[in-house]
Amino acid sequence: MKIAVDAMGGDNAPEAPVRGALLAKPQCQADLLLIGNEIQLRTVLGHTDENAGIEVLHAPEIIGMGEAGPTAIRKKREASLSVAMRLLGEGEVDAVVSAGNSSAVVATAKHFVGLVPGLRRPSMAVSLPGYAGRVLLLDAGANAESDTIHLVQSAALAHAFLKVSEGLDSPRLGLLNIGQEPIKGMRVIQRAFALLQRSHLRFIGNVEPTELFSDRTDAAICDGFVGNVLLKTYEGLSEKLIRFFEAHSGEWSEPLRDEMQQLLQAYNRTHHYQNVGGAPLLGTRKTVVVAHGRSQGRAIANAIHLASRLAGEEVFRRMSDQLMEGGILAELKHLSTIMMLESLKTRWGFTQK
Amino acid sequence: MKIAVDAMGGDNAPEAPVRGALLAKPQCQADLLLIGNEIQLRTVLGHTDENAGIEVLHAPEIIGMGEAGPTAIRKKREASLSVAMRLLGEGEVDAVVSAGNSSAVVATAKHFVGLVPGLRRPSMAVSLPGYAGRVLLLDAGANAESDTIHLVQSAALAHAFLKVSEGLDSPRLGLLNIGQEPIKGMRVIQRAFALLQRSHLRFIGNVEPTELFSDRTDAAICDGFVGNVLLKTYEGLSEKLIRFFEAHSGEWSEPLRDEMQQLLQAYNRTHHYQNVGGAPLLGTRKTVVVAHGRSQGRAIANAIHLASRLAGEEVFRRMSDQLMEGGILAELKHLSTIMMLESLKTRWGFTQK
Repeated sequence: MKIAVDAMGGDNAPEAPVRGALLAKPQCQADLLLIGNEIQLRTVLGHTDENAGIEVLHAPEIIGMGEAGPTAIRKKREASLSVAMRLLGEGEVDAVVSAGNSSAVVATAKHFVGLVPGLRRPSMAVSLPGYAGRVLLLDAGANAESDTIHLVQSAALAHAFLKVSEGLDSPRLGLLNIGQEPIKGMRVIQRAFALLQRSHLRFIGNVEPTELFSDRTDAAICDGFVGNVLLKTYEGLSEKLIRFFEAHSGEWSEPLRDEMQQLLQAYNRTHHYQNVGGAPLLGTRKTVVVAHGRSQGRAIANAIHLASRLAGEEVFRRMSDQLMEGGILAELKHLSTIMMLESLKTRWGFTQK
Repeated sequence: MKIAVDAMGGDNAPEAPVRGALLAKPQCQADLLLIGNEIQLRTVLGHTDENAGIEVLHAPEIIGMGEAGPTAIRKKREASLSVAMRLLGEGEVDAVVSAGNSSAVVATAKHFVGLVPGLRRPSMAVSLPGYAGRVLLLDAGANAESDTIHLVQSAALAHAFLKVSEGLDSPRLGLLNIGQEPIKGMRVIQRAFALLQRSHLRFIGNVEPTELFSDRTDAAICDGFVGNVLLKTYEGLSEKLIRFFEAHSGEWSEPLRDEMQQLLQAYNRTHHYQNVGGAPLLGTRKTVVVAHGRSQGRAIANAIHLASRLAGEEVFRRMSDQLMEGGILAELKHLSTIMMLESLKTRWGFTQK
């Protein structure tokens, strides 16, 4: 197995991706392929024995963090990210890991790798530490604007992923909303609510953000803007709290300081994005893992481990089978058409003969 | 001064509003008027001396948490909330506090109290504990769907509020977004970015949720859905973190546990919504304060204190003057028209003679 790492993606490239590869390699069965500016990469890599099993492939261009994905894909076909996705599409590698511009990751994945047939968009899935287990949040930032069909397709992706990857028999799916009542939130969400309720998916209704920290749902579905805001609030507040405790630590007795230190480390182990290690881009035909833009080496290494597991267990292919054979996407599309006809009937008063 | 409390609003009504009034009264200059089912209210109030300065006004109807505001206002003109807002509109009371259905609070406030001329909607402003000071988040849930003009008007409201109420000379205003670049986020946000940049407001660009916990901005502007999700994530994660620490402190010795308890109390004092006490509904012509639906007595009492201060300092009237005399709303409207013409010009290629 071979995993391509976009070595020019993210705020700390190329150092972080290279260090991530070096960190990951000893525990990783897969070969690693670093793609980017060869001279820079070789400099950071050095000439130690550690880089056995790590190849370098030159790619002359870089897609910046501020570029729109669709433009980048037209103009920069030789960017590290484009090259990585092309190799994945052609079967030369088995997975791609990138901490780059997520809009570009989505655009290149769609173009070079392709989506599960019938799917409109991929969806970024982040596994948040919830009450006891974890809650899958998606879309966590792949697409800013979402229509009803995108939301319900994200629900289907969550269903397939939790079944295939986490072994849940009948995963609970909730719509992230600002109240439990079906009339809450934007119209697209209200329509998604009505549609999911009629589907065969296990839809448990609206979930409020506070409920992510209870054990009400296995997945929370939202548009990518809201998901990303939630994720970054989670991250910012976590860090703020840690700072709050550290700021007070001067007033503490010695034993409390030790205990707190351990506690904060325990918290970080399960909660900090560096240790979570990346979000699978669900819906692509092959394994794509997006790492946090702020990733340091450890976060990239964890993203590589995740990609290696997902590719090894063929999660993306099995998800695709699940969605196709189970007829889930087809059912959602059918329901969407029926609901559109119903709303036309109500609005214009025509009747079927 | 007299403050009307919607005694039937919120998850814990009528107990929480009544207890809130009893808690607030001793430190509050204003007279309090509890509006709701008189028999229930008298039962909870009891016949102690404490309720000196607390009147009760009977209102036969209740607006439930799941009702849409515009419907509720047509059907339930004798609901506690409608009566409270009517009295405020007529000048019989100086402020309204409600923990009820926020959609109904907005609808009744618009209808019975009215908005600052030129304003499309009110906006709920929550003051979040940021890095050092506080950050004003708005809209925190008054309206789920927002257009560009609503976002920029929220920015104007934030500007006026921070100037009048917090004494900031030139408040920094940021747009909540998932990246700093102007092309990030939904189109309505991109347009609001372009518009605010041309205005005289001190617009500092996009702010990411993580930056709410640094000292980059005094206010973060977003639509009510996103704001409410952010707020509830903040709340849920805070509570989860406290539980995390409490769960682990069981293994500790007695004195350590006491120290820890004090620390968590210190955190709660500044961060828990019970102690923040409610969000002003900015843009209404008179003082309206929305309390959290889950409010217990203490949260209501703090909301009453906030309403009392805002009404005492005539913050809402002075904001209205600020917005009118400063020509801020007029400028935003003008810019919005100009930008619309420009986009028509680019799209259809017509030229002005």
